[in-house]
Amino acid sequence: MLAAPINPSDINMVQGTYAILPDLPAVGGNEGVGEVLEVGSHVTSLKPGDWVIPAGASFGTWRTEAVVSEKTVVKIPREIPLLCAATLSVNPCTAYRMLRDFETLKPGDSVIQNAANSGVGQAVIQLAAALGFKTINVVRDRPDLQDLVGRLKALGADHVLTEEMLRKPEMKDLFKRVPRPRLALNCVGGKSSTEILRHLEFAGTMVTYGGMAKQPVTVPVSSLIFKDIKVRGFWMSQWKQDHDQNREELNQMLLDLCSLIRAGKLSAPFCSEIPLEDYKDAVESSMKPYVSAKQILIM
Amino acid sequence: MLAAPINPSDINMVQGTYAILPDLPAVGGNEGVGEVLEVGSHVTSLKPGDWVIPAGASFGTWRTEAVVSEKTVVKIPREIPLLCAATLSVNPCTAYRMLRDFETLKPGDSVIQNAANSGVGQAVIQLAAALGFKTINVVRDRPDLQDLVGRLKALGADHVLTEEMLRKPEMKDLFKRVPRPRLALNCVGGKSSTEILRHLEFAGTMVTYGGMAKQPVTVPVSSLIFKDIKVRGFWMSQWKQDHDQNREELNQMLLDLCSLIRAGKLSAPFCSEIPLEDYKDAVESSMKPYVSAKQILIM
Repeated sequence: MLAAPINPSDINMVQGTYAILPDLPAVGGNEGVGEVLEVGSHVTSLKPGDWVIPAGASFGTWRTEAVVSEKTVVKIPREIPLLCAATLSVNPCTAYRMLRDFETLKPGDSVIQNAANSGVGQAVIQLAAALGFKTINVVRDRPDLQDLVGRLKALGADHVLTEEMLRKPEMKDLFKRVPRPRLALNCVGGKSSTEILRHLEFAGTMVTYGGMAKQPVTVPVSSLIFKDIKVRGFWMSQWKQDHDQNREELNQMLLDLCSLIRAGKLSAPFCSEIPLEDYKDAVESSMKPYVSAKQILIM
Repeated sequence: MLAAPINPSDINMVQGTYAILPDLPAVGGNEGVGEVLEVGSHVTSLKPGDWVIPAGASFGTWRTEAVVSEKTVVKIPREIPLLCAATLSVNPCTAYRMLRDFETLKPGDSVIQNAANSGVGQAVIQLAAALGFKTINVVRDRPDLQDLVGRLKALGADHVLTEEMLRKPEMKDLFKRVPRPRLALNCVGGKSSTEILRHLEFAGTMVTYGGMAKQPVTVPVSSLIFKDIKVRGFWMSQWKQDHDQNREELNQMLLDLCSLIRAGKLSAPFCSEIPLEDYKDAVESSMKPYVSAKQILIM
């Protein structure tokens, strides 16, 4: 391996609370990029020097070397930055699928999301901007709010709001300038999800991909019956498993994402690079509240 | 009009809390059956003696006579019992659409529902039995529980449980005999909806069509992400509005339902017939808790 991030789902897996748990003893880490050092005599799709990322979950990326079947990895172009490659297979892929697979959006349509400064949130902002969708980005209030707003706007965010602002009457003014969203992306749950759901257009969809608040999604009955709101979930690991036999869609998605990276339209999330031997510090840093940088282990 | 029921949504409309409110002054009642007495010279689809039901909502059925456009009504066969005709257009249609439009079920599959003794609940039991689907029916505990269980089983219910039983480990035994449901029908909201949702099969759908508990639908984040549960809503009035320009599907549904009625497979819900002049008593009775009979106004 060359580099591997520490994602919240990695921590959940180590804690034993994740929906996929590898047999023990196991190596942590589900995402990262590696370089092929050597291949067996029957391997035709890979050669030494190629860059590869895990095809599915529980690869165990927090290590220097691994001997694996060629089917467990997917080749990606080498011409993208190392940190982009290391963080390509989970967050940008999640953003890509959620923006495409639930509602048919066209340029000018809008998307609302909470946890907008998360890894997925940053990818949503950039992919939506590249596709011409307007984004309404919700973050928690914090001491350095204006700094965060600036950073998200630099990525292409159209509107950045705190959760408190979502409940104010001024929201009506916002929806004079931008159409009501047909898609809401929820990484938080609890009150935050109810609030973004309330701003959805008739027959819109809310997709939940995380539960940072550790509270369930609460949906007013009237939203379901009278507004025909659809409440769904998305899990990248499941999508990869469902598409494991035919990798065409996976390969196409990775090519699309790498094109956007090369075009300067998709960057890696804010990262801190940490040598593998300092993994303890990196894991601890990744679990602090208001994390504003993803910890990347460098091998 | 010949006969018209008092439904919970009629009460909500009178209270001003429903999503459709007619201009005042208005006549109450959204459902019922009438007989055509006279037609205008350009009317070709109807003749005196035909039975008709409202095509959409807010017709105002609690009256003896009305002069309306032929487009506001749909003709139904006269050979079905009066009480079946009076209660045909809302509850059985809601049950019919929910069983068909959200999951593709095949004989032997199962459906779970709460408020199983409601008008829609009774129609779900009978339609599911006719289609070969197994039903798991949840009701609130009550003094005459065994009597209610007997009545629902006589309609074709496979399993009748109280909400408390849903949380017991014995549920595992049930799912050795009947497959986990791919469809949950929710008329209650609150805890009851969370409980039926927990028993859904992977990637199943819960459809909410009522909110008797006056509490929102609460969905665990893990059900959405890891079980791919879909949370939807259904409103018959909206469906009718969406299908108003082309009545083919509406007519086909009414023909299917009337065939089942004639075959003795779909009966009217438990009813009390009340003369129109006693409407005050009827409205009051319809609002009591644990109502076990629908109040039908007879003109």
